[in-house]
Amino acid sequence: MDYQFAERVNKLRSSAIREILQVTEMPDVISLAGGLPAEELFPIAEIQAAVNQVLEQGEAAASLQYGPTEGYLPLRRQIAGIMQERGVSCSSEEILITSGSQQSLDLLGRVFLNHGDTVLVENPTYLGALQAFEVFEPRFKAVPTDDEGMVPEALERAIIEYSPKLVYLVPTFQNPTGRSMNRERRWAVAEILRRYQVVLVEDDPYSALRFEGEELPCIKSIENDRVIYLSTFSKTVVPGFRVGWMVGDPRVIGSMAKCKQGADLHTNSLVQHILARYLQETDSPAHVARIKAEYKRRKDAMLTALAREFPPEVTWSLPEGGMFLWVQLPEGVDTGLLLAEAIAEKVAFVPGKAFFVGEGGENTMRLNYSNSSPELINEGIRRLARLIKPHLDVA
Amino acid sequence: MDYQFAERVNKLRSSAIREILQVTEMPDVISLAGGLPAEELFPIAEIQAAVNQVLEQGEAAASLQYGPTEGYLPLRRQIAGIMQERGVSCSSEEILITSGSQQSLDLLGRVFLNHGDTVLVENPTYLGALQAFEVFEPRFKAVPTDDEGMVPEALERAIIEYSPKLVYLVPTFQNPTGRSMNRERRWAVAEILRRYQVVLVEDDPYSALRFEGEELPCIKSIENDRVIYLSTFSKTVVPGFRVGWMVGDPRVIGSMAKCKQGADLHTNSLVQHILARYLQETDSPAHVARIKAEYKRRKDAMLTALAREFPPEVTWSLPEGGMFLWVQLPEGVDTGLLLAEAIAEKVAFVPGKAFFVGEGGENTMRLNYSNSSPELINEGIRRLARLIKPHLDVA
Repeated sequence: MDYQFAERVNKLRSSAIREILQVTEMPDVISLAGGLPAEELFPIAEIQAAVNQVLEQGEAAASLQYGPTEGYLPLRRQIAGIMQERGVSCSSEEILITSGSQQSLDLLGRVFLNHGDTVLVENPTYLGALQAFEVFEPRFKAVPTDDEGMVPEALERAIIEYSPKLVYLVPTFQNPTGRSMNRERRWAVAEILRRYQVVLVEDDPYSALRFEGEELPCIKSIENDRVIYLSTFSKTVVPGFRVGWMVGDPRVIGSMAKCKQGADLHTNSLVQHILARYLQETDSPAHVARIKAEYKRRKDAMLTALAREFPPEVTWSLPEGGMFLWVQLPEGVDTGLLLAEAIAEKVAFVPGKAFFVGEGGENTMRLNYSNSSPELINEGIRRLARLIKPHLDVA
Repeated sequence: MDYQFAERVNKLRSSAIREILQVTEMPDVISLAGGLPAEELFPIAEIQAAVNQVLEQGEAAASLQYGPTEGYLPLRRQIAGIMQERGVSCSSEEILITSGSQQSLDLLGRVFLNHGDTVLVENPTYLGALQAFEVFEPRFKAVPTDDEGMVPEALERAIIEYSPKLVYLVPTFQNPTGRSMNRERRWAVAEILRRYQVVLVEDDPYSALRFEGEELPCIKSIENDRVIYLSTFSKTVVPGFRVGWMVGDPRVIGSMAKCKQGADLHTNSLVQHILARYLQETDSPAHVARIKAEYKRRKDAMLTALAREFPPEVTWSLPEGGMFLWVQLPEGVDTGLLLAEAIAEKVAFVPGKAFFVGEGGENTMRLNYSNSSPELINEGIRRLARLIKPHLDVA
């Protein structure tokens, strides 16, 4: 039988990365490709204690029953506390719990994007956001971005030219580059949002994972009204729970909840109860500190290996937190071709092109350091360096 | 600040039911309105044992890490076993695990529905399906339906007239009516699907909850190629896990998985591991038998109370399973007005109109019997009867 799929399905971004990740999950490949947290650091015992408390006490039935679309109220209150620490005062009516940040992005697309609406993005940008939004068939326009993040003057010009419905940014330890927008630009962006009445989606999964350098304020803390803020427990607790959150104007959150009801009714009740218990009963900041110390060790191992092994024509970002690092090779080197050779040598990365809107990025790659030991990172970089050198002679 | 939402948001079905449910969740209201399973029957101890096994053994890290979009393979294999018992042979490539049946419906909308495509539905039909699909702006056309389910001749005429993209049916213990499509019609529908090459979505959350009468085959077991089958663990284990599944052609499942990646990456890993353990370690059929025995007791209590209390002009369905029963009052009675009086008397139901496409249903109501004790059901029906009588004198 022939199936007639909707037009949007045929337009979906290729699942190239998904296929790469499947290849690289073979056990003997050193994968610097994925975006997985270090599972050796998962707080398994603390989670087990929290589950047993939930299931042994009065909340067991509620933790297994249908629940409110907006999310479990005690967890929303705890998230309000987390937001306070990030400089944002909000009530639980301004918080929607989602089935991970990916769902937050999907709901944003549903609520805001008509066919043909413009979304302004960094270039490169987070691929998952492009995948979530493109179901609603917007136009993506890339705004020039450098080592200090999106360029405010370029953002202003793009707003004037395209009248975007949304601006999408990952200002801190961006995926894929690991770069952060500097302090001055955050204020400049907030001012531009106010001036042009534009809505910014500030996607912030990584800022809690700063292991060096000076704290930067989230843009939501500078300009509350025009920013919808997303974050998640995936990097600070565990990703398998699929619990994220969104903070915005109650009218926005109300529309999101209405759409979420049609999308999945509500987020898993049990893990919301587990998270609320976990945050209450354990020293969660101490756990995050352990994650940061280990990621810094792995990032330093990668930087050391890159400096030692990679040719001088190659440059890379210097992340102060998060999970990724961005490598730029000389023009003419095609990291897509390089990947095929790398897989043959049992090492993997993600070619940078997938993160770009439009042309560009053929000579870039994303490296992940959170999910490999320093020893494996060392060996992986050594193998990559060996493969890169012949490409440089040709390029 | 003014927010410009997408057009689809303004067209979303009113959240009337959600608001009703919020009112009726006040502790002293006898709610026959919701669609909640009996939480007294939740297998809490067995779930706790399963969680502890998952977290104490080799699979702990995997159960907390990112996982495959298609779902946890051991659970997909167990679902293949469940499908075998339902008369459907399928491999794990034909199974997608979803974040509850509501997400299955959302993904079906994404993959199949262009703006303006027609979906044929029963009348009344499951409200959650209308909510999931309407984001993609199809036309809904109602096909005449009686006590034995959708009328095959009417379905054939509607297919010829509207060339629908999908037909959506809940053939067994339908929500909202509790009615089932009879055996002959299932074969007739399968034949029509073959003749006109139409795709049927068979939504089957309830068939495992048959407490009397003869088993009916699912339509997927009669016509495999043209049926996408949905089911869930919400009614047989617990709804708070938000785990459902979809069975279809591998091409359909592949497109669904691609869309699911953009929607929420994958379903909660921990509960998939818990479910796989639970199904392996516990006598899950014995647990379902306990649920069925209790729901039959509650259904019988409701039927007895209805026969004793309700005036002879009122009729109702006689469900052989599931969670709902459908009441038809004389024409001219408006159950929307009745609800306001009922809430004042601390009893609640869902007015039937919300389940209809287009006009009709003002004189109907959905009653739920799964979530109240026989004593409360008795008292609730007594209060409703008292409120209904004056409406009949007027009508």
